[in-house]
Amino acid sequence: MKAEMKVIEDANREALKRMLSGDPVLVDVIPAMEAITELKERMILHAGPPIGWDGLCGPMRGAITGIAVFEGWAPDLEVAEKLAADGAFDFHPNHHFDAVGPMTGLTTLSQPVMVVENRTFGNRAYCALNEGLGKVMRFGGNDDEVLDRLRWLRDVLGPAMSKALRSGDGISLKSLVARGLTMGDEMHQRNVACSGLTLRAMSPALASTSTDTEALSDILSFIGGNDQFFLNIAMAMGKAIMDPVRGIEGSSLVTAMSRNGTDFGIRVSGTGDKWFTAPVEMPEGLYFPGFTEADANPDMGDSTIVETIGLGGFAMGAAPAVAGFVGAGTASEAANFTRTMGEITLGENPEWTIPALDYLGVPTGIDIRLVVETGLSPTINTGIAHKEPGVGQVGAGVVRAPMACFEQALHAFAQSVGVS
Amino acid sequence: MKAEMKVIEDANREALKRMLSGDPVLVDVIPAMEAITELKERMILHAGPPIGWDGLCGPMRGAITGIAVFEGWAPDLEVAEKLAADGAFDFHPNHHFDAVGPMTGLTTLSQPVMVVENRTFGNRAYCALNEGLGKVMRFGGNDDEVLDRLRWLRDVLGPAMSKALRSGDGISLKSLVARGLTMGDEMHQRNVACSGLTLRAMSPALASTSTDTEALSDILSFIGGNDQFFLNIAMAMGKAIMDPVRGIEGSSLVTAMSRNGTDFGIRVSGTGDKWFTAPVEMPEGLYFPGFTEADANPDMGDSTIVETIGLGGFAMGAAPAVAGFVGAGTASEAANFTRTMGEITLGENPEWTIPALDYLGVPTGIDIRLVVETGLSPTINTGIAHKEPGVGQVGAGVVRAPMACFEQALHAFAQSVGVS
Repeated sequence: MKAEMKVIEDANREALKRMLSGDPVLVDVIPAMEAITELKERMILHAGPPIGWDGLCGPMRGAITGIAVFEGWAPDLEVAEKLAADGAFDFHPNHHFDAVGPMTGLTTLSQPVMVVENRTFGNRAYCALNEGLGKVMRFGGNDDEVLDRLRWLRDVLGPAMSKALRSGDGISLKSLVARGLTMGDEMHQRNVACSGLTLRAMSPALASTSTDTEALSDILSFIGGNDQFFLNIAMAMGKAIMDPVRGIEGSSLVTAMSRNGTDFGIRVSGTGDKWFTAPVEMPEGLYFPGFTEADANPDMGDSTIVETIGLGGFAMGAAPAVAGFVGAGTASEAANFTRTMGEITLGENPEWTIPALDYLGVPTGIDIRLVVETGLSPTINTGIAHKEPGVGQVGAGVVRAPMACFEQALHAFAQSVGVS
Repeated sequence: MKAEMKVIEDANREALKRMLSGDPVLVDVIPAMEAITELKERMILHAGPPIGWDGLCGPMRGAITGIAVFEGWAPDLEVAEKLAADGAFDFHPNHHFDAVGPMTGLTTLSQPVMVVENRTFGNRAYCALNEGLGKVMRFGGNDDEVLDRLRWLRDVLGPAMSKALRSGDGISLKSLVARGLTMGDEMHQRNVACSGLTLRAMSPALASTSTDTEALSDILSFIGGNDQFFLNIAMAMGKAIMDPVRGIEGSSLVTAMSRNGTDFGIRVSGTGDKWFTAPVEMPEGLYFPGFTEADANPDMGDSTIVETIGLGGFAMGAAPAVAGFVGAGTASEAANFTRTMGEITLGENPEWTIPALDYLGVPTGIDIRLVVETGLSPTINTGIAHKEPGVGQVGAGVVRAPMACFEQALHAFAQSVGVS
């Protein structure tokens, strides 16, 4: 028993070290087919653990029919839905292809994806561009407005960001996030500071590589008008940080948490790429005017990669203003969430600190043993989608990762280290 | 006695109402000579209450000789200093001409000034563009680098901002500052959020009104690289908010606090435009590497207009990260400054609130009676200049307004309401 404990301790020390030594840099925006060469026609990467059409929730179905029209695989939504039901599309998790996506999180051939490179380990991770708020595909939207915006991201914003990023050395995300934490962001439901810092870092190069000041003005206006623009960057960053932490024998550290709107799945370093899943829960939160919990789809998206690296719900203490937005109680209590998540994590991030907590580092490295032992499952700040296809966001809230995922994972982990 | 109390209460209610109903909007950037038509050749507006050349401190002298060269009144700094000593320049406080300036705060004919309009009352206030950090005129710098930057502000940035601002309806500052308070700014020594929000609001119009993408890139880079860019906007906003509060008979509310590096002066609504002055104090703070308190010039600048409207040291609770920068103790204690300033103010600003304090409004409307009664003088977050001309900033700290100003003011105020 003592020997196994030593193995686990050493493995977790190595896992935490890899997490904290990651050096994520936003380097480019390229078509998904260039980033992920395995992508093919009619292949759809989605958020969360593996799932087929029959198991998919409403907003996921809405997004899929929309993306099929966008990619030219179907002339309209109706045909797209029929094709999907007939098995014409090939579904895989983003996580299996170095990618992540918020909410429905679809990644397909021609969408532009942001490239975050982890310079310490050389790996890259990808995430599509954030579409803004309102009616958007990540919340299940699929009408002309949604598809037109995707075309603009593909034809205008993506190429412009690519030119700007390639003209320099990329945007170092570790220090940018550190700054964002001093400016009230937790990088999941509040990204106003980091979105602004990204715009500020990128805008001189956007200007100097631009040939069309009207298009440039639109770009600056789109990024500047989208307080969640940074979310997708934070997600690619999370994936880029966590991928090198996968597959460390004996490590009980969580390397991914993700949801497809039906199932919640986690992966643990010591058990490789196996998913441990359980039904997703319903967020508790606040609804936009005209909507109630009866309209809500349960928890969805790869965005929980943000909590996996100690941000989002784990960094609530940095973002008292988000507490009200997600219905997590009074602002002055936000710090309690961060302190509680400290009970299920292996360490603190000395580079990502929270001024109001006298520079306490964000709780980092979720240990499945601590989750099961304390009965405290990770707190996640999340958007809430309407349960029907084609509607969009209806609110924001807080949700817990299902304890069953951690219990299953702990069982498999114990077997893997010979303690069953 | 009771009748006088009623007069004072009513007057202060009116004063606070005017403060809180101000609607400051950044509308333009124009040459100072257009904004302030009284400006003439060899006329220099400066920070703080009235003072002549003989009384001026080192950095103020450094800035004056520099601006004389910039304006073409002297061929070099040496001649400029001789001219100044011979009485060739005409000195007046910015405050007498609807203007404010940080630190040395010089305003002269050809410098561009930002225009903040208070749409509720129709008045306008002016402040020069922030030069950035390092060697700058506001900290007494006066070499070629400093003067070249002033020329670029005059010839490139000022006109570009003017075009951008005129193409729209201006930037509404009340909501922008409200947002900045949720992002860790106190708008005196920390303006990173508001500077970014301003850039974000202005950049689409900067792009669409630009004809030169390289110049545009320089502009975006300059604003984006200057975390204190918003300070000068906050100051013009403060002046625009406070000017309509002047001259309310029976009001004991402070309408201006300002320092020229030698004297600290305050003005009180009920005593009109009279200055009550006392020698400035030395900030207690932290020094940049290589400098100590022995290098420091005492307190200077019109920037205390920011505290006068409830920001800066009064809003420290919104900006825990600034506490360390100005040497004001631990971050978690920042809220105490805000709570203490609540003891000398007439109310709270319901539109400028601090999330971490469960949306407590910033303490607003300094009452000279409360200052004298409690013995608590206003807390000011400030930059620290080198005491010699031509050096620049050496640190940042916290300083108290001298109690003697408030005691004198209270004496005059008592006489004005017939209670002596």
